[in-house]
Amino acid sequence: MNNNGNFPSISVVGATGAVGRVCLQILEKRDYPPDRITLLASERSNGKKIRYKNDSLTVKVATRESFKDSDVVFISADSEVSKNLAPAAVADGALVIDDGSAFRMKENVPLVIPEVNEEDINFHEGIISIPNCTTTPLVMVLHSIRQVAKIDRVQVATYQAVSGSGTSAVVELQQQTEEFLAKKKINKNVYPHQIAFSLIPQVDDFESDGYTKEEIKMINESRKILHDESMKISATCIRVPVFECHSEVISVDLKEEVDIKEITQCLSSSPGVTYLGENSFDEYPTPAMIAGKDDIFIGRLRKDRSNSSGITFWVVSDNLRKGAALNAIQILDSAIKLGKVSKFQA
Amino acid sequence: MNNNGNFPSISVVGATGAVGRVCLQILEKRDYPPDRITLLASERSNGKKIRYKNDSLTVKVATRESFKDSDVVFISADSEVSKNLAPAAVADGALVIDDGSAFRMKENVPLVIPEVNEEDINFHEGIISIPNCTTTPLVMVLHSIRQVAKIDRVQVATYQAVSGSGTSAVVELQQQTEEFLAKKKINKNVYPHQIAFSLIPQVDDFESDGYTKEEIKMINESRKILHDESMKISATCIRVPVFECHSEVISVDLKEEVDIKEITQCLSSSPGVTYLGENSFDEYPTPAMIAGKDDIFIGRLRKDRSNSSGITFWVVSDNLRKGAALNAIQILDSAIKLGKVSKFQA
Repeated sequence: MNNNGNFPSISVVGATGAVGRVCLQILEKRDYPPDRITLLASERSNGKKIRYKNDSLTVKVATRESFKDSDVVFISADSEVSKNLAPAAVADGALVIDDGSAFRMKENVPLVIPEVNEEDINFHEGIISIPNCTTTPLVMVLHSIRQVAKIDRVQVATYQAVSGSGTSAVVELQQQTEEFLAKKKINKNVYPHQIAFSLIPQVDDFESDGYTKEEIKMINESRKILHDESMKISATCIRVPVFECHSEVISVDLKEEVDIKEITQCLSSSPGVTYLGENSFDEYPTPAMIAGKDDIFIGRLRKDRSNSSGITFWVVSDNLRKGAALNAIQILDSAIKLGKVSKFQA
Repeated sequence: MNNNGNFPSISVVGATGAVGRVCLQILEKRDYPPDRITLLASERSNGKKIRYKNDSLTVKVATRESFKDSDVVFISADSEVSKNLAPAAVADGALVIDDGSAFRMKENVPLVIPEVNEEDINFHEGIISIPNCTTTPLVMVLHSIRQVAKIDRVQVATYQAVSGSGTSAVVELQQQTEEFLAKKKINKNVYPHQIAFSLIPQVDDFESDGYTKEEIKMINESRKILHDESMKISATCIRVPVFECHSEVISVDLKEEVDIKEITQCLSSSPGVTYLGENSFDEYPTPAMIAGKDDIFIGRLRKDRSNSSGITFWVVSDNLRKGAALNAIQILDSAIKLGKVSKFQA
């Protein structure tokens, strides 16, 4: 958006949600003019005021008629909302950047992490999807590793923050924590089990083979973004009592033995990636340390003791930033650069 | 100890610690006579009273002269304490059952999980070690799986409770949680980083290849207990903001494809193991559910999507029970049965 003050008009659907709010923070930091932003949400939030710079913006109800003046529409809402509104926005000529799972695996919808597959934006037909917040950090590291070695197999165990389930889950963790400390009954609304001081080995519903939809998203989305449909990959997704940042233990089997130094150098020079551990193994990222940061952070990288051609490491990234809102805005940047926002010329 | 009221005299070193207290709970539940129990700890706890049944027991200082009348000595304390006291207890003819890492890898010290390698008790020379609390659940599952298939490779990511670091870490998680909720400064004493609402990808110190001592314990201890020195195995150990129960995501590559049903049937019939998920994938264990239970619990067992001969699953067990105190008492049961408590005949 470095185009001499010329900004596309943006509509944010889901403006009052966790991702919507981070999206606004990022726009604010970029001095995006408030009169180029329209905040949309469900009936329930109609008329709500949200602070933006020294001003406040009023939330309106998102309908299929909301997008006449929009160049770009960000949607961070339920899949049903995306399925209803995105076609209307496209019909009005807007570029839709969708944070949900509704369109991600559709053949004519690019699924994009600009640092990895920016060029896929060229093929959009009105909708570009953002990968799931656990997929993005995984794929960014795999993409970097692929510069120095062929990948044979990938295994992931996740440690996912509650903000990935939305604001109501953030409230639930806080309330359950208070109830636990006060030795009161633990109330459950969002999750099927207690999350305070516990873990839930289920994110999203189960498929028939015992994998959850979240795990299958990680598998299928990674293959799509990396254009490697046969990549061997498995994931187990666990919810942890953390507010912000998803973490992952990742093991990658390479097709041949590679010097760890080559890999860490490649990671260090990859845009959007910060490798910790250059000087000492006890430099590594934690969720408390990384919340609010843009990059994805890697630590604990070492040779896998169970496979001489394998490596194992730890990744932490802010699920609301690079996992969602930041990636959305970076997609917009790329789309503008590539001249792929049809109603808008920089 | 079903020997007509004949009980060996037990000294518990570290009686005021997290494991010592659970040990007493288990003895109490078994109606172990209080006059056959001696509670020992450091100078700091001298004279402390601990409730036991309708009585109370007084803690004495543990010295090398404490064991004249002991048939069995449980030690759950720092390695230095074990190294100092265990030889004295052995010299006095007692059987030492040690919870620390001091002797575990010594050739003349059996490392025992009774359900797995009870017969190794026959070779003790005065000391039997208890495996690390992350090793025990892992090995119990691997042992069961080995009944139906040869294991090629094992990979583990852990989710470890703070009680594994002792009572001071339990206090730290509680205090940091309160500080966080009150938006106060987070104080750190036990861990190098904030643990409340965060994760720490380091348990114990680092070795030169980037693995931590905890991870290497899991690898070496598993090989020793299973008598398989060449087993390919890797682990990444993560501390999570949970008070009780260690959890693990485990992937096992088998040497050939095996029907999942065969494996789950074998797990279901293994002593000390409870398999959940017989009827539905959304039956699985969580730490909040399993705390205080004796068995290790398995769920989410499924074929690995990245390897047709692989399986992936989720294990939760109470780190203070089967991971420590319960296993110690079960070792004593086995040693009595095998006639290997030299000062005591049932």
